[in-house]
Amino acid sequence: MSSCVFCEIVDGTAPARVVYSDDDVLGFLDIRPIKRGHTLIVPRTHSAGLGDLDPHLGSRVFAAGQVLAGAMRRSALSADGVNLAVNDGRAAFQTVFHTHLHVVPRHHGDKLTFAKGLVVRRDPDPDETAEMIRAALDTV
Amino acid sequence: MSSCVFCEIVDGTAPARVVYSDDDVLGFLDIRPIKRGHTLIVPRTHSAGLGDLDPHLGSRVFAAGQVLAGAMRRSALSADGVNLAVNDGRAAFQTVFHTHLHVVPRHHGDKLTFAKGLVVRRDPDPDETAEMIRAALDTV
Ligand SMILES: [Zn+2]
Ligand SMILES: [Zn+2]
Repeated sequence: MSSCVFCEIVDGTAPARVVYSDDDVLGFLDIRPIKRGHTLIVPRTHSAGLGDLDPHLGSRVFAAGQVLAGAMRRSALSADGVNLAVNDGRAAFQTVFHTHLHVVPRHHGDKLTFAKGLVVRRDPDPDETAEMIRAALDTV
Repeated sequence: MSSCVFCEIVDGTAPARVVYSDDDVLGFLDIRPIKRGHTLIVPRTHSAGLGDLDPHLGSRVFAAGQVLAGAMRRSALSADGVNLAVNDGRAAFQTVFHTHLHVVPRHHGDKLTFAKGLVVRRDPDPDETAEMIRAALDTV
C-alpha cells in the first residue's frame, strides 16, 4: 500500500498546523505557501482527485473553503480577497494525489498573478465546444 | 438597481452558451476563455462573492464543478486535468461580481501556468499564522 501524506496528517501520524477541523474535512497550512496563510482543505476520506471524490465530501470541502475565506478576511492576515482552487490531475499542477482545495489569501497590489502565460483568444467555434461538453454530460 | 450580466444570463435576457443547468446553478462558456471549454458555474440566486453566498448554494456550485470536470475529461475536448477556481474579491482578480466557479480544462504540456510570480518561501512564523486564522474562526 502506498503512503499518502495527507492521510497521515488526517490520522495524526504526520505533523501539520491545523486551522480547521470538522467531521468530514481537515484544513492545515500548506508547507510551501504561495502567500502567508495559504491553507489546504482535504476530505478525511482518501480520494486521488475529483473523479473518485464522494460528491457529498466535495461539498463539505467547498463549504470549509467558504468559511476559511471569511476567516482570512476577518483575521489579522487582513486578506482583501481569496482564491479557492482545486488542481485536478498532473496536467493541472496537482502534486499530492489526495484531493485538496487551496485557500489563498490575497491583498491589493500583491505581485501574485494567477493563470499567467495563457492567451485569451476567440474560440474558433464556441458552439461546437459547448456541444462537446453537453454531449459528455449526457453520458453520465 | 444595478444590472448583473450573470443574473441576465440566468433569467435568459442575455445570451450564453449553456452547458449545464440544474435547479440551483447554471454553467456556460466563458466569453473570454483561457482554454477552449473554459466554463463558468454560477448560482441562480445573486451573490456578489463568497461572503454573501448561501453555503448550500456554494455546495451546489462545487458539485456542478465536479460534474463538469468529469465531462471535460470524457468529452471530445479530452482534458488531461482540470482547474477549479473561485476568485473572490478584486484583490483575487474577480471581475464580475456575481459569484462564479471557473472550470478550466487542461492538457499535458499546455503553456498555461497558474500562480506565476509568486515566491514560495518560508513563512517566518507559521505557528503565529495558524493561530491568526484559528482566532478568526472563533469569531464566527
Ligand atoms: Zn490520502
Ligand atoms: Zn447576479
